[in-house]
Amino acid sequence: MGEDIIPAKRPTPVTLREVALRAGVSTSAVSRAFTPGASVSARKRAVIEAAAAELGYSPSVLASALTTGRTQMIGLVSNNFHNPVFLEVFDQFTRGLQDRGLRPLLVNLSGDMVLEDAVRMLRRYSVDGVILASSTLPPAYAAKFLEVGLPVVHCFGRWSPRPQVNIVGIDNRAAGRLAAGTLLAHGYRRIAFLGGPDGASSTQDRLAGFLDVAQAQDDVQVSTSFATAYSFDAGRAEMQRLLSLGPSAEAYFCGDDVLSIGALSALADAGLDVPGDVGVLGLNDMEMARWPNINLTTVRQPIADIISASIDLVVASLNDPAQPPEARLFGCSIVERGTLRPRA
Amino acid sequence: MGEDIIPAKRPTPVTLREVALRAGVSTSAVSRAFTPGASVSARKRAVIEAAAAELGYSPSVLASALTTGRTQMIGLVSNNFHNPVFLEVFDQFTRGLQDRGLRPLLVNLSGDMVLEDAVRMLRRYSVDGVILASSTLPPAYAAKFLEVGLPVVHCFGRWSPRPQVNIVGIDNRAAGRLAAGTLLAHGYRRIAFLGGPDGASSTQDRLAGFLDVAQAQDDVQVSTSFATAYSFDAGRAEMQRLLSLGPSAEAYFCGDDVLSIGALSALADAGLDVPGDVGVLGLNDMEMARWPNINLTTVRQPIADIISASIDLVVASLNDPAQPPEARLFGCSIVERGTLRPRA
Repeated sequence: MGEDIIPAKRPTPVTLREVALRAGVSTSAVSRAFTPGASVSARKRAVIEAAAAELGYSPSVLASALTTGRTQMIGLVSNNFHNPVFLEVFDQFTRGLQDRGLRPLLVNLSGDMVLEDAVRMLRRYSVDGVILASSTLPPAYAAKFLEVGLPVVHCFGRWSPRPQVNIVGIDNRAAGRLAAGTLLAHGYRRIAFLGGPDGASSTQDRLAGFLDVAQAQDDVQVSTSFATAYSFDAGRAEMQRLLSLGPSAEAYFCGDDVLSIGALSALADAGLDVPGDVGVLGLNDMEMARWPNINLTTVRQPIADIISASIDLVVASLNDPAQPPEARLFGCSIVERGTLRPRA
Repeated sequence: MGEDIIPAKRPTPVTLREVALRAGVSTSAVSRAFTPGASVSARKRAVIEAAAAELGYSPSVLASALTTGRTQMIGLVSNNFHNPVFLEVFDQFTRGLQDRGLRPLLVNLSGDMVLEDAVRMLRRYSVDGVILASSTLPPAYAAKFLEVGLPVVHCFGRWSPRPQVNIVGIDNRAAGRLAAGTLLAHGYRRIAFLGGPDGASSTQDRLAGFLDVAQAQDDVQVSTSFATAYSFDAGRAEMQRLLSLGPSAEAYFCGDDVLSIGALSALADAGLDVPGDVGVLGLNDMEMARWPNINLTTVRQPIADIISASIDLVVASLNDPAQPPEARLFGCSIVERGTLRPRA
């Protein structure tokens, strides 16, 4: 019977059903034969194993997942595929997960997919856990995964003293303070915050820190504006708008590196020299920031540490679901390159 | 019994085993209850469905995969996470797959993972098919997936009149001819090919096309060199090496856009003006190429069309495994921006 169903050269993977047909047993017998501890007679097991070997069937992770409840897959959810830093983020997440025997199922929330679909999808695929890699999605997004029973880590999420879900990232308020302090140390007195989307907690927290330091100084003027996204185009458009309104600030702290590069492009078009006329300070220290034709001074976020801790936490959560959520924060540092004038 | 095992608030997804425990039946009975066409008594099915509803269990894609042989997962294999064009590639693949109800399991071959591990892993995860997204991996890589019975598409692969596996990409030889013709049309006569890795078929084919046109002209001098990778650093290092050897060519066709940006950086450091002193021509037309501070003239590869066709072909192959492999090629065009002097 098997001869009719199974061609000599198989173009698709062998299924459990085909092994059952070849062995002349039920699919559940095949399933039991490959399930540690499940009951199946020695005679039946021998027949099934012979059929499996003949067809080249090997029990899949998915089959064992049905009994262990583990698929070794982690949903990696992101909403920004227009910021080059995310290529580094995906590189490090995929390698870090692979090193631990885990696999990323990549979910792109930047298209038509809404959160509810992503949650439903990741449940249907029985991922072991979810890493939400985004500084712009609200905390409620991460909480949604937890609600349906999925261990979750919000990477680049907002710090909280009593986090609802695991958070790994930087203290954005401290990063804002560091940025303002750096601009002051370079002798700037008319300084500006050109943030990411104003609804994002990362933007709000960086602004609060920036103002903590700037407003404590009597002789410092601060202005504030926001780009619509963390992208080159949004940074360029916002700087063009600011320049159209009148004289530039002396120096800008931009929401991140890609916004900074967009702003640099608008400044160059306006005939303004950096750092001769205007200073620009980024955040992230993505690979491109050190390219000599960009050479951006920036607040360095330790991305490798953040990603490694995110993987550690998702693994810890799925090994011990009772563990309370924690927030792990990493410190930022300044990388001095060529877009601020020399320190005062 | 179930009361001891299942806490009131569940932190992890409900497993089939837990449903079996709650219903007081075997795991294979639960599996049969959720398998279309499988045999289970009406009474048992009712008990199992009640237990499943109570625990919030829903049959997963993985459970149905055991009988249908389909997981709706596609392995997306890449080896270059240092070329910004791949962020666009991942964005378009994830959205395109999601639109068709498919999910990408992302595999990063740029770390320690070797091909054999990737093949073994993707089989264990029972992906329905594989898309290899790389212009540098040899054709044998794609063939390896096919050997183990996985439908495969080599996206950005090498064209062949009788392909072993499905190929989608550009005719690299035609792209090389287009590039040389463009440099000649701009009046350059000492022209250079600064390719990607010389072992890559894409590099060899682009070079062959470039020489087809350049060597047909008596008054044209051609030189050739190769970068070690498709990355900014490799493009910059190779241009630095070339400049250290003596006078520059009048114009360079670089292997791709990120190599071009690296080369531009080295030219700027050497005090050479582009396009005043030297011309640079890229390939891809990635998002960054149109950034005004890069403004790269480039050979445009229709990436969206290539990715959409790759998804179509992998779906067609898994629906009809008997279908012979095909090669789909897209035409390239020139996008004129600011890195070549005006046409002669």
